[in-house]
Amino acid sequence: MNGILYGVGIGPGDPELITLKAKKIIENCEVLVAPIKKIGEKSTAFEIIKPVVNIEGKKILEVVFTMSGDDPEYMACGKVAGDIIAEELKHGKNVAMITLGDVSIYSTFMYLQRYIHSIGFKTEIIPGIPSFCSGAALAGLPLTLGNEGLAIVPANKNEPLVDEALDKFDNMVFMKVGNNVKNISDKMAERGIDQNCATIISNVGMKNQYIGPIDLSREYGYFTTMIVKKNLK
Amino acid sequence: MNGILYGVGIGPGDPELITLKAKKIIENCEVLVAPIKKIGEKSTAFEIIKPVVNIEGKKILEVVFTMSGDDPEYMACGKVAGDIIAEELKHGKNVAMITLGDVSIYSTFMYLQRYIHSIGFKTEIIPGIPSFCSGAALAGLPLTLGNEGLAIVPANKNEPLVDEALDKFDNMVFMKVGNNVKNISDKMAERGIDQNCATIISNVGMKNQYIGPIDLSREYGYFTTMIVKKNLK
Repeated sequence: MNGILYGVGIGPGDPELITLKAKKIIENCEVLVAPIKKIGEKSTAFEIIKPVVNIEGKKILEVVFTMSGDDPEYMACGKVAGDIIAEELKHGKNVAMITLGDVSIYSTFMYLQRYIHSIGFKTEIIPGIPSFCSGAALAGLPLTLGNEGLAIVPANKNEPLVDEALDKFDNMVFMKVGNNVKNISDKMAERGIDQNCATIISNVGMKNQYIGPIDLSREYGYFTTMIVKKNLK
Repeated sequence: MNGILYGVGIGPGDPELITLKAKKIIENCEVLVAPIKKIGEKSTAFEIIKPVVNIEGKKILEVVFTMSGDDPEYMACGKVAGDIIAEELKHGKNVAMITLGDVSIYSTFMYLQRYIHSIGFKTEIIPGIPSFCSGAALAGLPLTLGNEGLAIVPANKNEPLVDEALDKFDNMVFMKVGNNVKNISDKMAERGIDQNCATIISNVGMKNQYIGPIDLSREYGYFTTMIVKKNLK
């Protein structure tokens, strides 16, 4: 019997936001996989789960996944990681790949899954708390109410969609806004959207955490999200 | 010292998709609140948490929250529930209101929070797994990859936004599509979007669970979501 590859979402970073199911699946797998950006780097995901999940005695595989944002490169990483993982599955070992946030939201697991399916193995996905849900919770904000929609847009990669979202949706989550805060602030002003409709959620759980209104005098890092709610006054 | 009102997301229905934090907060609160649709009805949320959360000896308040979809009615329910809860907070009791899915996504907690803040009490939100993340996991689908966006639209309440999403976004989650499957299927056809780009997720965990392509011969209930991915072939 072949093993199963689990894609396990561990949530946004607070170890307590791991689900009971994620904890159980990880503890029941013999092999754990964590994606890293380059060789020698520590896996953030492992640091997050360690306080609440018992990973003693497990085989740990760290596999490199590019952050290039380039589809063919992701697919290539998926193949390299997939072949390493397939060796374990063939020997009947269950494998858990742990990913930050939720597995369905911008996760590299999906590239790995495509390859693993193509070579005949099974996968199962355990959802996690997406960073934007946790961000909204910390800011005390609803993301969407009643008949409103919600647009989730990677602000650093898809400017036309930032415009569409601002034009047509009541609520938006702009992911990875680090260098785009001024740009989005300008776009809001052009459309007569009050600057107070935006809330920035940056570096959650880190020393320089910031949750508050747009402040153009600040520098924002990679892990910065902006929630814009037109109906918030 | 006044108590705190916690809004606790318990996820989509699988008791194991509750987070460690939700479990801890609920167990540490002396009073639990569950929203019900009408008096005498059982709270679905309580049935979900019972197998994994110890609620023995806690005071249980069931408060009625309309499902009308009408903002003023929600606010009115929030006030009635809020006054009952405030009595507990005043006596230093911590109160947890448990909500299905995530607290920021179409949750009545937000109406309650607005009222509770207005009368001077504190709240804290514990995020949960949204139903659409769990649905995507069950269907084995990514919701969004690379530079793509994701639109979340209540299909039963906002038809213009269904059109916008189909026109401009690569990925869509249409919530509450029960009676709108044919309508959305037609809209996809008009735009040349392949019918296989849609996956229906219906009645998860219930006897009549269905996860699969559009099947117009079926009847779909209230808890039906459709994921449309233009780049899925």
